[in-house]
Amino acid sequence: MSAPPSSWKGGPLPPGSTIGILGGGQLGRMLAQAASKLGFDAVVLERDADSPAGRVAVRCLVGAYDDPAALAALAEASAIVTYEFENVPAATVDHLIGLGAEVAPGPRALAVAQDRVEEKTFLNAHGAPTVAFAAAATSDEAVDAATRIGTPCLMKTRREGYDGKGQRWVEHPADAAAAFTALGGVPVIVEAACDFTRELSVIAARGRDGATAVYPLAENHHEHGVLRRSIAPARVTPALADQAERIAARILSGLDYVGVIGVELFELADGRLLVNEIAPRVHNSGHWTQDGCEVDQFEQHIRAVAGWPLGPTRAIAQVEMLNLLGEEADAWLKYAAEPETRIHLYGKREAKPGRKMGHINRVKPL
Amino acid sequence: MSAPPSSWKGGPLPPGSTIGILGGGQLGRMLAQAASKLGFDAVVLERDADSPAGRVAVRCLVGAYDDPAALAALAEASAIVTYEFENVPAATVDHLIGLGAEVAPGPRALAVAQDRVEEKTFLNAHGAPTVAFAAAATSDEAVDAATRIGTPCLMKTRREGYDGKGQRWVEHPADAAAAFTALGGVPVIVEAACDFTRELSVIAARGRDGATAVYPLAENHHEHGVLRRSIAPARVTPALADQAERIAARILSGLDYVGVIGVELFELADGRLLVNEIAPRVHNSGHWTQDGCEVDQFEQHIRAVAGWPLGPTRAIAQVEMLNLLGEEADAWLKYAAEPETRIHLYGKREAKPGRKMGHINRVKPL
Repeated sequence: MSAPPSSWKGGPLPPGSTIGILGGGQLGRMLAQAASKLGFDAVVLERDADSPAGRVAVRCLVGAYDDPAALAALAEASAIVTYEFENVPAATVDHLIGLGAEVAPGPRALAVAQDRVEEKTFLNAHGAPTVAFAAAATSDEAVDAATRIGTPCLMKTRREGYDGKGQRWVEHPADAAAAFTALGGVPVIVEAACDFTRELSVIAARGRDGATAVYPLAENHHEHGVLRRSIAPARVTPALADQAERIAARILSGLDYVGVIGVELFELADGRLLVNEIAPRVHNSGHWTQDGCEVDQFEQHIRAVAGWPLGPTRAIAQVEMLNLLGEEADAWLKYAAEPETRIHLYGKREAKPGRKMGHINRVKPL
Repeated sequence: MSAPPSSWKGGPLPPGSTIGILGGGQLGRMLAQAASKLGFDAVVLERDADSPAGRVAVRCLVGAYDDPAALAALAEASAIVTYEFENVPAATVDHLIGLGAEVAPGPRALAVAQDRVEEKTFLNAHGAPTVAFAAAATSDEAVDAATRIGTPCLMKTRREGYDGKGQRWVEHPADAAAAFTALGGVPVIVEAACDFTRELSVIAARGRDGATAVYPLAENHHEHGVLRRSIAPARVTPALADQAERIAARILSGLDYVGVIGVELFELADGRLLVNEIAPRVHNSGHWTQDGCEVDQFEQHIRAVAGWPLGPTRAIAQVEMLNLLGEEADAWLKYAAEPETRIHLYGKREAKPGRKMGHINRVKPL
C-alpha cells in the first residue's frame, strides 16, 4: 500500500505539516498546543466529539481506535502520528502503519509498555533494575508466584490498569487465589514489595538521530494511586542523577525510541534506583517542565517525533506541580491570585471526583 | 435587546467559558492559545476560512467584520469578545454591544487608537507627551500645518496605515500639498520630526478592578517601518522606567482600559519620553514576554478581559526577539538547533516578502 501524500518522507518535518494525535485528553491537548507553537497543525482522533484536545486542534476525527474510516482519515491527514496514551491497541498502530503512516514512538515501545511482564523483562535485560516479579495465568500459578516472590507482594493485571486500578496487595500466599479472582482471572504479574524511600521519575527524550535529552528528576507523591504532587528538580546527589540518566538512556536506546518517555523510579535506602514502570508518552510528572524548563516535555515530544533537534532540558526554576482533581479546580480564582502560581486547565466539561481537571505549577527561583 | 445566554454577567469569567476574538492572525492565534491554557474556549471571527487563529480555536466563524450573521453568532457564542487588531470598525463593536456582547478593550480605546489626531489629543490631555502635531483635511490646510509644525515633518493619514504604510516625509512646506495628494487626499496629521535616541515600548495591562501591571521596557529596532528586533528588558535608568510606568498608568486610567496595551515611545537625548502611538491590543514588541516573563502578554490580556487577577510582569530572562519575515522563517531548522532560541511559528501558508511568519526569542539569564 502506498504512503498517503501527507506522509513523512524522512528528514525534519517542516512547519505547516500536520501531526496526528491518538487521544483527546489533556496530554493530547498540551501536545496539540505545543505543535501549534512550532507552526504545525494538529489533528486528533478521539471517540468524544467535544474533547480537551479536539478543541485546540485544527480538526477532531471522532471515532474509536478500531474505526477503519477514522484511522484512514488520520493516516491521510497526518505526516506523523503520535499518541497520548500507552494503551492504544497494537492493532490500531499496525493498521496505521499498514496505511503508510509514520507512528512514533513505535510499536515496540507500546508492546513493552502494555504488558507488565514484557516491561520488566525488557528492563532487566537492558540493565534497568526492577523489583523481583513472576507471571501467573491461573489461580494455582498465582499462589505459586506469591510463594516464590514472598509476601506481602503486589498482584497486578499484566495489561491495562492505571492510577492504581487493577492491582491488589497479597499478604499471604494463600490469599493469592482470591486476589487473582478479584482481578478478573486474567493474566497477572506478582511483584515483590519495595521498601522505597522516595518515588522519583525522570522524563527523557530521544530524537530520530538517536540524540537523547534528560530532564532533572522529579519527586512524586501519590494519593489513592493517583499523582498528587511533583517537586522538581528533586533534591538528589549527582550520583543518583547519573544513575537515573544511565537508566533512561538504556531504555531509550533499547527501544530504539523516538519521543518523550516517562520513567517512574523507586529510590531505595541504599541509594539504588529501581524502575517501577515506563510510559511511552509525555507524563504527568513532567508537567513541571512547562514552567521550570525552557523547552517543556510537550514541545520536546513534538520536536522528537518531527525529527527536529531536541531542546535544552536544564531547569530554570524550582517547581511544585499540584494536580487539580475533581472540584479542586473550582479554586481557579484563588490560584490565579497567587503570583507564584501558573495555571493549566484542561477544559473538561464535568468535574467528576478524582478526575484530572488541571494542574498548577508553583514556581520559585532555583 | 436582551443579552445572549452566554454573555458575561460580571465577576471573574469561569474556565469553560468562551472568549470571542475578532481577527484570525498571529495575535489572535497566540491569544487563543493563551485562553485555552486557562481552560477557556476560543472562537475566532475572520474572513479567511484557514487562518492562523482559526486553526487553534474551537470554532472559526468565517465572515467580514460587517457581516451581521457572523457578528450575531460571535455574540451568541462568546461570554466576552476581544480583538487582535485596533482597526476593527467602530460599527462592528457597536453592533456587538447592541447584541448584548461584552467587548474589551472598550470602544473608547478603539476610537482613540484609530484616529491619530484623537490619539495625540487624548495623550496630551492625560499627561502623556507627544511630538507637536496639527490636523489637516485639505491641501491648503496641509501646507499650513507643515508651516506651523516646521519641516522636515511627517504626514500620515489620520486613520488606517500600519507598519510604515500611509505616511510621507515632508521636507519643505511647499511639498505638503503633493504629499497630501499622494496619501489620497484624506484627512491627515502632520507631526514634528522627533530626534529620538531610541525607540522603546512598554506593554501594560489593566484589569476590570482597575489594577495595573507593567512589563519592563523593550528597546525596538525597525526596518522599512516594520519591527525587526526587540531587546528586553531594555537597559534603562530607574528614572526612565518610572517615567514609562507613569505614562502607561495615565493612558490606562484615562481610557478606563481593560486588557493589554502596547505603548510605543521615543526616548530623547535629554531623557524625556514621548509617546509615538498606542495599540489597544497585544503588541509585537511584547512577544519577548513569552519566554522572558512568568505570565506573558497573551495570558495577561486574557486574564484582564476575563476579570481575573493580573499576573506577575517581572522579567525572568534577558530576551532578544527577532521577527521572521517572509522566507526568513525557512531557517526554522537552524533556529531549532540553537539551544538559546525559542521558536514561535504562526502556521501561515504563504511566505510573502515581509510577511510576519513567526518570531524567535533568544534567551539569556538576566
